[in-house]
Amino acid sequence: MKLLEDIIAEEGRVYPGNVLKVDSFLNHQIDVSLMDRMADAIYQRFKDAEITKVLTIEASGIAVACSVARCFGVPVLFARKSKNLNIGDDVYVTRISSYTYGKDYDVTVSRNYLNSSDKVLLIDDFIAIGNAMKGLIEICEQAGAGIAGIGICIEKGFQKGGDDLRRMGYDVMSLAIIDSMSEDGTITFRPSAE
Amino acid sequence: MKLLEDIIAEEGRVYPGNVLKVDSFLNHQIDVSLMDRMADAIYQRFKDAEITKVLTIEASGIAVACSVARCFGVPVLFARKSKNLNIGDDVYVTRISSYTYGKDYDVTVSRNYLNSSDKVLLIDDFIAIGNAMKGLIEICEQAGAGIAGIGICIEKGFQKGGDDLRRMGYDVMSLAIIDSMSEDGTITFRPSAE
Repeated sequence: MKLLEDIIAEEGRVYPGNVLKVDSFLNHQIDVSLMDRMADAIYQRFKDAEITKVLTIEASGIAVACSVARCFGVPVLFARKSKNLNIGDDVYVTRISSYTYGKDYDVTVSRNYLNSSDKVLLIDDFIAIGNAMKGLIEICEQAGAGIAGIGICIEKGFQKGGDDLRRMGYDVMSLAIIDSMSEDGTITFRPSAE
Repeated sequence: MKLLEDIIAEEGRVYPGNVLKVDSFLNHQIDVSLMDRMADAIYQRFKDAEITKVLTIEASGIAVACSVARCFGVPVLFARKSKNLNIGDDVYVTRISSYTYGKDYDVTVSRNYLNSSDKVLLIDDFIAIGNAMKGLIEICEQAGAGIAGIGICIEKGFQKGGDDLRRMGYDVMSLAIIDSMSEDGTITFRPSAE
């Protein structure tokens, strides 16, 4: 998505350890109109897939997931990273190993809101090694829910997450795929991104 | 807001310890069209306040904050509950004591995205004793940003947070104020809520 690539090139900052900061528009400050533009692109790809629910993970996936869900007219469901005392015990749970934070955490989804009649579109703002997304897939498997596809804003194409999921057979739409980046600010995008 | 009160009465569940579960539409599964309806009500109240930014706190405030920000045509900024390695050290920080989780946590906002030229609308899904909202106010004070008002989806009116903020002089708009609730499912709303 040319618009997103342009914004990443303009506002993204590269830090040591392959860290890309896009907190001016995606995962701290949020450009809601950009979320809506990205959501529309994802909707165009999956609009005939009979989606019943958009599943994401807190926190920075929620904004774009809400924009996507609005297009489809379905609810968002976000997996929680720590067990909320306000949610009962009747949950699907899986453990995710975080590359960014360097530790493991459990994510939970209430059994009340996901089941075998659902056809789910998985959404997240970022994919790198893909552990968060694989955790959401595991949650869907526990629920017996179908997975129609996966929509990602920014894929770090030099890490294995996106391609792992494609090899697993999932229909992965990444709006910008970064093939390489360097601390001098050069960011190279994969031409095939949509 | 009658619509919200009706949904709370229909779908909310009361648990011991004054816990109200509204995870079917507000803070786990999200009814995006309801977010938009609530956002419009908040927009009508603050539309002339020259808002430059909507500030909330992760995670469950993000959905309604995005809907509100769309109405105003301004960015959302969400305070992060734990320091993200992808955000540098140049942050405002304050400590919040969580009633729900029974522990303290730091929240941070990057100095890049909030300053004395901002006029902020604070948004959250819930207010009980109000510590999260007081933390956001503290962040705004550190930034020298003006606070135009506070928009809340559900206020637990039998706890002190909302009224504390009103006594402090803030323009607090709560879309539903619960004056009492009991484990038999009875929920009484304050007639004055908007």
